[in-house]
Amino acid sequence: MSKLVYFDDLVVGQRFESSSVEMTEESLIRFSRENDPQFFHVDPEAAKESMFGGLIGSGWQTGALTLRLLLEGCGLSFAGGVVGMDAHISWKRPVRPGDCLHIEGEITKLRTSRSQPDRGFVTFRATTLNGDEEAVQTIEATMLAFRDPARRG
Amino acid sequence: MSKLVYFDDLVVGQRFESSSVEMTEESLIRFSRENDPQFFHVDPEAAKESMFGGLIGSGWQTGALTLRLLLEGCGLSFAGGVVGMDAHISWKRPVRPGDCLHIEGEITKLRTSRSQPDRGFVTFRATTLNGDEEAVQTIEATMLAFRDPARRG
Repeated sequence: MSKLVYFDDLVVGQRFESSSVEMTEESLIRFSRENDPQFFHVDPEAAKESMFGGLIGSGWQTGALTLRLLLEGCGLSFAGGVVGMDAHISWKRPVRPGDCLHIEGEITKLRTSRSQPDRGFVTFRATTLNGDEEAVQTIEATMLAFRDPARRG
Repeated sequence: MSKLVYFDDLVVGQRFESSSVEMTEESLIRFSRENDPQFFHVDPEAAKESMFGGLIGSGWQTGALTLRLLLEGCGLSFAGGVVGMDAHISWKRPVRPGDCLHIEGEITKLRTSRSQPDRGFVTFRATTLNGDEEAVQTIEATMLAFRDPARRG
């Protein structure tokens, strides 16, 4: 288990890069059946007739995976968990079965909460890339993170 | 099955409202285990000690559900499927097990593609509300939608 990270550990400009995970066809279809059952997400045969020429993943799955890579694949295990406040996402390219995805990004803004001094807001930008280093998604998001009680002073 | 909708069927200012679906504890935990396994999403006992005082849903599940309600719960079954281009999401309030969610929104912008005349871009704003009519999420998103070949002229 990686060391827990507090708001106080972060600096603007801090860069991160994750390990890589494979989007398997099975995981892609399972997610989409439950959450985004469009034919080009769930039916490999029918998807061939779509504008994509084959099965592609749901953007929501890429979004969730991006945050998971931030928490688990970059060592940014926030104490108390991570709570998203808002996110601006662009889906740039389809994610296809077998794509290996990783993220690269940086912290762009840090702001302590005025009303609740035990926490702060962390804004980051991250690009999710496939095995050919093509961007499949960009995200700029703000999350809540807790301050270290020992360092709040 | 509802009538298929083309880009040409939409007008700016058009409002929509969906039917309501329950976020069950079982569905909330199943989604989170696979996609967002933070303790306040997956462990009802541990979640009591979190800042939320109990289990809450993943924002990605609310996002995916919102789009599903747009497609299936508002009669907006787009011909050829719906492909998200980008989205700006704010998570306003926790979603808790048993919450019944619906969406209300409107189409805010329509733009035909210059390079590909068979399609256009649809921008909408939608609020996802719980059973107490409290906003749990707002989204402004742009999707690709196909034009009706019969009406393109």
